[in-house]
Amino acid sequence: MIRLKCTIAYDGSRYAGWQKQINALGIQTVIEQALYKIYGEELTAVSSGRTDAKVHAWGQVFHVDVPKDIAPDHVKQALNALLPEDIRIRKVEIVDEQFHARFSAVRKRYDYLCTFDADDPFAVRYKQILYRELNVQKMIEASQYLIGTHDFTTFASSHIHPLKPRVKTVEQIELVQENKDLRTIFVGNGFLRYQVRMMMQTLIEVGKGHLEPIAVKEMLEAKDKEACRYNAPAQGLYLMRVDYE
Amino acid sequence: MIRLKCTIAYDGSRYAGWQKQINALGIQTVIEQALYKIYGEELTAVSSGRTDAKVHAWGQVFHVDVPKDIAPDHVKQALNALLPEDIRIRKVEIVDEQFHARFSAVRKRYDYLCTFDADDPFAVRYKQILYRELNVQKMIEASQYLIGTHDFTTFASSHIHPLKPRVKTVEQIELVQENKDLRTIFVGNGFLRYQVRMMMQTLIEVGKGHLEPIAVKEMLEAKDKEACRYNAPAQGLYLMRVDYE
Repeated sequence: MIRLKCTIAYDGSRYAGWQKQINALGIQTVIEQALYKIYGEELTAVSSGRTDAKVHAWGQVFHVDVPKDIAPDHVKQALNALLPEDIRIRKVEIVDEQFHARFSAVRKRYDYLCTFDADDPFAVRYKQILYRELNVQKMIEASQYLIGTHDFTTFASSHIHPLKPRVKTVEQIELVQENKDLRTIFVGNGFLRYQVRMMMQTLIEVGKGHLEPIAVKEMLEAKDKEACRYNAPAQGLYLMRVDYE
Repeated sequence: MIRLKCTIAYDGSRYAGWQKQINALGIQTVIEQALYKIYGEELTAVSSGRTDAKVHAWGQVFHVDVPKDIAPDHVKQALNALLPEDIRIRKVEIVDEQFHARFSAVRKRYDYLCTFDADDPFAVRYKQILYRELNVQKMIEASQYLIGTHDFTTFASSHIHPLKPRVKTVEQIELVQENKDLRTIFVGNGFLRYQVRMMMQTLIEVGKGHLEPIAVKEMLEAKDKEACRYNAPAQGLYLMRVDYE
């Protein structure tokens, strides 16, 4: 048995997220179908974590245990020949059995893209459209409250298993203006379901003047799953990178 | 009667080009349906020129004669509310009856996007994917032969009406590397059907080493519609701007 680590990019527009599903097309299903064609066996692609429907990735990672010793570059080529053009394998490496795409991950980076150009016909699947300029300075101020190790119950799906820990470390939140786009970079040791999108939309509400920066601190400290009802649309979110030891 | 000049952007992926057609969806049809809902009359949107299927635009221009005096900003809002999100009206202006979107145009800019990242899942509808680095220096050298006033019979569709003049002036061809992308900017007083895409793919063949730069000069001077069989894929092409006096 050989364990492969695969780095993968996808345009999430057409997919119901990473996970295999019964009535919708998950990226995992498409990958596993391609693996079946190469290895002739049903194999399981274990990712660093799910991405939701319409979320994109530049650097998602999965591992898979394969029964045959095919050179990693040939596996990459074969997968890319079989996969649709909106899913691309960027790298295949042989790793030892200790490596686990989810449990060995130590850091993730997500980027969220907004545009201030309300008449951008290319944004609909790739960015959140904002209809007026935001106060980015206030957003930066608010983001400081989210950095550090906190219980992020407020900024997470209410459907997380009750025993799952809510404490995560956000190492970095950076807002970068690129022409008419606003890119927000989130780096942390892991994120709860919806956490990036909920933090993002909360910052946007601050930028719109609907919330004062200090309100973000209060929301966080409430540790209350009812305290934040903001959730940024999925199409602006990109899983950029997963780091391992 | 009031003549409006409208500047329009579109993601051409879903469309069979600008022109109204019987068995496929042209952007013109979508626009005219929206105009009908606003003005209650069948109106004709006259563009600066066709764009082909899957070609994009940031600055296409059309004019339309409307029977009612509605403020330009309100027309823009109403059109954008009615149009799909991949077609956006960027500007509406009142112009005098001398203005004609096609005949008054004095200059056009087209950009063509290539990427050297073969594993970019976002490129399929928006860029030509190149599987190896090109010799950009040779491409620049070759592009110099295309600049100026020439008979571009070689670099044009063979289906152009025999009486249509083939002499056009290319004012500028500029190649700009942007990270892993190569943007080629074409500015001229007008372009024949397929001219930009045929010139582009010819330059790419030079970049790949399949043609020497001097061959482009020979092809151009041949004024022979059989002399160039290259045509870059439509999805990399963007009509960026149309200038008027």
